[in-house]
Amino acid sequence: MDPTEVSPELYTTVFENERVRVLKYRDVPGDCTKPHTHPDSVMVTLSSFRRRISAGGRNVEVELPAGAVRWVGAQEHAGENIGDTETVSIFVELKEPAPGPPAEPTLGPTGG
Amino acid sequence: MDPTEVSPELYTTVFENERVRVLKYRDVPGDCTKPHTHPDSVMVTLSSFRRRISAGGRNVEVELPAGAVRWVGAQEHAGENIGDTETVSIFVELKEPAPGPPAEPTLGPTGG
Repeated sequence: MDPTEVSPELYTTVFENERVRVLKYRDVPGDCTKPHTHPDSVMVTLSSFRRRISAGGRNVEVELPAGAVRWVGAQEHAGENIGDTETVSIFVELKEPAPGPPAEPTLGPTGG
Repeated sequence: MDPTEVSPELYTTVFENERVRVLKYRDVPGDCTKPHTHPDSVMVTLSSFRRRISAGGRNVEVELPAGAVRWVGAQEHAGENIGDTETVSIFVELKEPAPGPPAEPTLGPTGG
C-alpha cells in the first residue's frame, strides 16, 4: 500500500536516507488516489487545495492554503481532489518506529 | 543554540509533537542569523533564495528555488541572506536520536 507503488503517477520520491523518505504529491482536480498507507509524516503544502480523504466508510474534507504544515499520523486512506486547483504537497515520512504505545489511527491531517 | 531562542524574530515553531518540531524561517535580504544548531532536519523551501552558510571559518553559498527539498544533517552554523529575495523555509526537525554511529557534521543542506 506504498503510495509510490499504488499511485506512481501522483507520488514521487524526491529524497530518501536512513531516517526519512520525502514524497512529492501532485494532482489535478478530479484525480483520485488508490487506497494507500502513510507512516507518521509531516505534510507541507506547496499549493492551496480542497480534498476528500476517505477510509473505512468515513470521510473528511480538507481545505488548506499553500505553505501550511500538518501532521499526518500513520493511517490508511484514499484521497480525491474535489477543488478547482492542483494539489502539490510534500510528505516527510518518518522511517523510525514511533516511540511509546501505538497511537489511535487518525483520518486526514491534524495540528498546524 | 536553539534557533527559536537565538533568532526568535526569524524562526518560529509552527508545529510540535513528541517526534518532530517544525520551524518556519522567514527573513529579508541582508538579514543574518546568530550561530545556532539544527538536529537532523528536512528543509522545504517556500521561496527562492540565495544564502551564505558559515561555521568555524568555512562557508558555503546555497541558491535554491521554491519547492525544493533538502536534508540538513545535524550541524551548527549561521546564515546570511545574500540574495535579493525573502527566504521562507520550513524545517522539519527530527527529535529522536539518530540510529547508528554519529555522522560527520556537514555544513549547509545536502541531497535533494
